[in-house]
Order: sequence, then structure tokens, then C-alpha cells
Amino acid sequence: MTKLRCGITVSLDGYVAGPNQSADNPIGEGGLRLHEWVFPTKTFLAMHSDAGGGETGVNDDVLRETFAGLGATIMGRNMFGPVRGPWGPDPWKGWWGDNPPYHHPVFVLTHQPREPLVMQGGTTFHFVTDGIESALAQARTAAGGRDVMVAGGASAIQQYLRAGLIDELELHVVPLLLGAGERLLDGVDASHVKLELIRTLDGPGVTHIKYRVTKATGR
Amino acid sequence: MTKLRCGITVSLDGYVAGPNQSADNPIGEGGLRLHEWVFPTKTFLAMHSDAGGGETGVNDDVLRETFAGLGATIMGRNMFGPVRGPWGPDPWKGWWGDNPPYHHPVFVLTHQPREPLVMQGGTTFHFVTDGIESALAQARTAAGGRDVMVAGGASAIQQYLRAGLIDELELHVVPLLLGAGERLLDGVDASHVKLELIRTLDGPGVTHIKYRVTKATGR
Repeated sequence: MTKLRCGITVSLDGYVAGPNQSADNPIGEGGLRLHEWVFPTKTFLAMHSDAGGGETGVNDDVLRETFAGLGATIMGRNMFGPVRGPWGPDPWKGWWGDNPPYHHPVFVLTHQPREPLVMQGGTTFHFVTDGIESALAQARTAAGGRDVMVAGGASAIQQYLRAGLIDELELHVVPLLLGAGERLLDGVDASHVKLELIRTLDGPGVTHIKYRVTKATGR
Repeated sequence: MTKLRCGITVSLDGYVAGPNQSADNPIGEGGLRLHEWVFPTKTFLAMHSDAGGGETGVNDDVLRETFAGLGATIMGRNMFGPVRGPWGPDPWKGWWGDNPPYHHPVFVLTHQPREPLVMQGGTTFHFVTDGIESALAQARTAAGGRDVMVAGGASAIQQYLRAGLIDELELHVVPLLLGAGERLLDGVDASHVKLELIRTLDGPGVTHIKYRVTKATGR
């Protein structure tokens, strides 16, 4: 069985987005600083440019491992994109422009039915209105024997954790205190899941902690 | 200058105590499971028994390092002990019986003045009513060239973090979700402190992450 994985960057105080999220600043005040470890890596640059270059090392290894063997992504409505925003008349295009960095099918959890949106580079957004289990079943089929990633946001991840559906959780913990914002691990407790440490790696400016997740069996 | 250190065990969702804390269960439901990594270590057993034995390895090394070079401890009122409880007529004795595991001066933050309480084994509790900076000054003097530890609870640690007084923060992160309770890092943000990763160590059932903490300078 392939895995449902979740890999996400959090501040040391557990936030995946800073305070005062808005259409102009979807990851909130200070939220961009969470992702600074990603930008200089060779893997990230290769996904966003043909220029080559970038840093190798622990952070690059972890990022490459994240995308390896991945066949589909699931995300919440707000992670996909805002309902209205300053970038043009069509709010249903997603945050990433014409060529999103996924390059595989992406399943967006929403209440609003809509035709699939085919982008450049192999990414197609599918809008799923009948719940997280349906989205997972569709993603598994689309992934064709590869893993599926729940990319975010916090609410989507919490739903999958509470349902005991996530197999592997990797937190990229950044030494930053946001003080407020959107917390990843809220409303999920040991009655939902059991965690087991797989490994920890220190990269520049970030600690990568990977856990095996199993469904809690009574208590 | 000696360091003001903080070392504390947290669940992956950031709690230092579980929900429904009470005089009978001061670390809340599920809270004791946070500390399971400590109990089998050689260092912990040596502090609580003359029988010898216990496990060596990463967890024991980290615990030994925590106590090495420590000359005084600071704690909040609730960590010291309850106002009333089931253990007898004197609520001002602390949780730890006649011979607490500190073996050095302990400064308790409280609003109620009281004479120092001399225990067996070198621990004396001093009750400080004039604030965290006074407690730190007294602790530094008492520590005589060794480090001072802020042991908890969350509120005391938050006060010292917000004041920019902590030099080193070590979190022992346990793969457990408590879902509710007392969160360590609440109300502290990057305007108070700047964190820099020193090192991460994996022990059985716990990840030890140590940060250098510096006072934030504007922003």
C-alpha cells in the first residue's frame, strides 16, 4: 500500500501561517520566513527555473526526498487559492501561475463543484466536494502506485490526522516564534493517532523530524 | 557570565501539561507520559535511589548535561506545589517530599511572602515576591558561578522569554499529541527573542532540540 504523507514547515511554536492572513498575504505576517530554508535549495530552484544552481546538503536532500515517489497531492480550498484576489478576474486558478510546481494531479477539498482545471507542466486541479476519504481514494488512483501528499493547510491536515489516514508526518521545525496565526496541531490528540519517531535531521536553519503515524486503537 | 537555561519536555503539539490539571493530577491527563523518557535513565535513578542501575545512552547523556554546572533553579508557584492538597496539612512543602531532587537553592515566584524552606539534601526553597528579575538576580548570586535553570511552568518560562532573559532553550519533544492543556510557547513571538539552533539529538522516544536564545533587537 502506498503512503499518505504530510510534510509541512512549522514555527517552533507550532504555526504554519502567521497572524492576519489575507488575500494579499495568505501565509500571514512573518509566515514567509517559515519557508526561507526551502528557497536556496537546488531542488526548489530546479522546480522554478531552468537556470540551475542552488545549495545541496541536508535541506536539499530532505526536499528531494519529499517529492520523490509522489504521484498526487491533496490540499484545502484556502491553500489552493483565494475566492477573490488582486491577480485577475478568475479566482479559480490557484496561487502558482500557469505552471504550478506539482506536475501531477492535485485534489482540492471544496464545497463548490467545478470542472477540473488543467494547467501547464502536468498539474491538473480536481475539485472534490464529497469529503476527505473520497479525495484520498481519487488521489490514490491517480497516483498510480506512488505516494499521496496532504500539502495543507492546517485544517485539511487536521481532518486527515483525526481520521487516522496519514501514514507519515514530517515537520520542518524552524527556530522562529510567530506568536499567533494558524496552528498545525490543534484539536488532534492521542485518541486519534499514535506517533513513532523515524528520524531527525538538522539542516541550516531548520530541524526535520519525521514520524510514522498509526491509527490509535482504543485507549 | 553564566547562563540562564530552560530545559523542558513538550508534546509534539507543544503542551507541557495535559488537560484538566488539578491538585491530584498537576500535570494533567496524559501529562505523565511526557516524562517517560526520563524515568529509566541512570541519571534520574541515581537522583531518586541508591540502588544504581538505569539506562545509559542519548537520553541519559542529555539529562546529565542538563544538571551539570547548575547552581540554582527558578520555578513558578504552581510548579512548586499546590495551595491545598491531599498530602497533609502543610501545602508549602513542595511536590517532592523531604529530599527534593534539586540539591541547590530553588527560587519560587509567588505573591505570598514566606520564610525560606530548608529541605534535606541541599535544597532550600526561597519565595520571591518582587518579580522575575529579582528572582534571577538572587538565583545568580546563589549559583556562585554556575548556571541557573528556569524549570517551569509554562507561565514562568514565558515571562522570562518575553523579558529576553533566557540564554538557552532545550525542548525535549515527545511524539505524543495531548490535544489540550498548558502550552509552553504562547504569547511569545519573534519581537521578544531570536532563536538559533545549537543541536538536535534523537533518543528513544524523544527528540532533544537545543537553541541559543538572544534578545530581539527592534524589528
